[in-house]
Amino acid sequence: MSLKFEVANTTEQGGRRGALSLPHGVVQTPVFMPVGTAATVKAVPQDALETLGGRGAEIILANTYHLYLRPGHELIRSLGGVHKFMSWRRPMLTDSGGFQVFSLAKLRKITEDGVEFRSHLDGSKHFFSPEHSMTVQIALGADIMMVFDECVETPASWERTRDSMALTHAWAARSKAYWEAHRHEVPWHEERGGQHQALFGIVQGGMYADLRRESADRLVEMDLPGYAIGGLAVGEPREVTREMIALTLEHLPKDKPRYVMGVGYPDEIEEYARMGVDMMDCVLPTRAGRHGLLFIREDPNDRRSAVVRLNIKKQDNAQDQRPIDEGCKCSVCQRYTRAYLRHLFASGEPLGATLNSIHNLSFYLETMERVRVDLAGA
Amino acid sequence: MSLKFEVANTTEQGGRRGALSLPHGVVQTPVFMPVGTAATVKAVPQDALETLGGRGAEIILANTYHLYLRPGHELIRSLGGVHKFMSWRRPMLTDSGGFQVFSLAKLRKITEDGVEFRSHLDGSKHFFSPEHSMTVQIALGADIMMVFDECVETPASWERTRDSMALTHAWAARSKAYWEAHRHEVPWHEERGGQHQALFGIVQGGMYADLRRESADRLVEMDLPGYAIGGLAVGEPREVTREMIALTLEHLPKDKPRYVMGVGYPDEIEEYARMGVDMMDCVLPTRAGRHGLLFIREDPNDRRSAVVRLNIKKQDNAQDQRPIDEGCKCSVCQRYTRAYLRHLFASGEPLGATLNSIHNLSFYLETMERVRVDLAGA
Ligand SMILES: [Zn+2]
Ligand SMILES: [Zn+2]
Repeated sequence: MSLKFEVANTTEQGGRRGALSLPHGVVQTPVFMPVGTAATVKAVPQDALETLGGRGAEIILANTYHLYLRPGHELIRSLGGVHKFMSWRRPMLTDSGGFQVFSLAKLRKITEDGVEFRSHLDGSKHFFSPEHSMTVQIALGADIMMVFDECVETPASWERTRDSMALTHAWAARSKAYWEAHRHEVPWHEERGGQHQALFGIVQGGMYADLRRESADRLVEMDLPGYAIGGLAVGEPREVTREMIALTLEHLPKDKPRYVMGVGYPDEIEEYARMGVDMMDCVLPTRAGRHGLLFIREDPNDRRSAVVRLNIKKQDNAQDQRPIDEGCKCSVCQRYTRAYLRHLFASGEPLGATLNSIHNLSFYLETMERVRVDLAGA
Repeated sequence: MSLKFEVANTTEQGGRRGALSLPHGVVQTPVFMPVGTAATVKAVPQDALETLGGRGAEIILANTYHLYLRPGHELIRSLGGVHKFMSWRRPMLTDSGGFQVFSLAKLRKITEDGVEFRSHLDGSKHFFSPEHSMTVQIALGADIMMVFDECVETPASWERTRDSMALTHAWAARSKAYWEAHRHEVPWHEERGGQHQALFGIVQGGMYADLRRESADRLVEMDLPGYAIGGLAVGEPREVTREMIALTLEHLPKDKPRYVMGVGYPDEIEEYARMGVDMMDCVLPTRAGRHGLLFIREDPNDRRSAVVRLNIKKQDNAQDQRPIDEGCKCSVCQRYTRAYLRHLFASGEPLGATLNSIHNLSFYLETMERVRVDLAGA
């Protein structure tokens, strides 16, 4: 068994408390997954990740596009896969590379076959097809891999979105066929008793309800181990994001994990988890941390109070001896003051990014732990 | 008692195994002190510093010039001193600011009274005198503070060096007078039962044996709690550094700690420790780490074999699954491969600087631990 998903309880609003068993361990859901773009969650050591918020990060992401370009997937394959490469023993997920090909790379040329693009690093020419994305992801060997999909620009017309969706479905079918034929090639296949990676489909359809519905139906027919909802949080109003998630969830099977990609603020991930989303990821906690933006509760003693942002740069933190968030149990809040963190930020000291990121990630994981307790319905 | 130094054993070559008791704890000597310029050892979290090489760093440095400019000594005083500011519970030492005023600041104007200079950060005008350096260092509240001295350019003529030395001695006397009158003003004076900071003198005299001797004699007459040897490792051949250290040590009291400032490579610190130097500091392990230069033993199984440098950038590390140094017990060598560290460096990932610095500092501390065992003469 390479993926097993068990739902222990479902609330009236559809929120689910579950457990996702993967080759590298069990993940309690709903879960927030820190993003480790280049096989490192920026500025955070692996041992800190393992203890964040008590339980630590149970699953992290890595980006296929970045690792394909540097250090290269064949190198990572030869070292036993991305887990061994970065010394991370718990589950991982890789995206398909599609999103970065469409957002970071240059001079793209899209055909039915795939996408030709130039590296954002050195301008070198590359080609990604569904089959090539699978090849790269199998070499990386994350527990979960994603189908290769086209990402449309936003906003896009209904017709443009429909055409893109059709391509995405064709690519999903090709991704699945390649995965089925090659999944035994994952570097840890034998070592893990013949287990393999799980492939997730990605529902597209932009901001059009009918297309979202159709996309979900087509992908569910492919009977994949899990489903993601892609193409959201790309600039649309938050009500639209929520509406698209809600209507897509209705069309996804209840016994499979559902993953919303690239969201969001702490209150958003809480909201979507309560609606029935099992997995989410976002660069926000680490990126905001590097920019000195820290998530805290409006009333530190009430962990259900509103999420507010503390801008550590501000002069009023200069002499503030309080921790970032007096109700936070993270290692940073237990040890350091706002005054010190402001000084690190103002001085451009690298320790600032590390400590800020650890707090923000802990804040996200603490939020999800609280949601899981609620969803367990004890 | 604000400083107590006990020598447990002295070898024939003059090397001493001792213990230095300070208001914030006991330091086993000879000791290497990591440099925390802006109240942070660059890229290394405090909890990692506490466990480096088992025992952890027992004393660290901070730079008076940097903390005076940013965030300001009055701010740090108002927060209880630099220990509380950075959440470091163990002993600390601050330099006088002199070295940075003479190396980093701009448009200096030196008079008998002190030095006027412009900040390297924003060009603002400042004035440091011996009294002002003491004021700043008392506000910071490190366990050990240093007299304010002039640093001559190198090479300097005998006459120029002699004149500078005379100024340095006058400034040392003024530093001592101010310290004696104001040392009860340290932020933790009451909290630590009336203890205060210890002031160390700095022997100058350039590369001239007669001036070194005279400088040592003048400073010893002042009866300070400890003595440093300054103005070395500024470009002179290593034999000259060693010669100057050796002849200066002869003129320093045997019952007081002796500190050589700003040296050096791992084999140098070992050599000087065996000659009778009790304390050393250097930015090299962290600076080299940030540049991808790692210290290792030529034969990893023989910790007394030659020190060699591993350049992690090099292509031959790309697939190397070994740790940095197979004989090193540090947390980085226990977990990560050269291949991963090369990838972090090549990708400009901040985790690279953190892990490289932790290894290099561990390497230095491991070296000193081995020297201490030898010097104990068991
Ligand atoms: Zn926190
Ligand atoms: Zn090591």
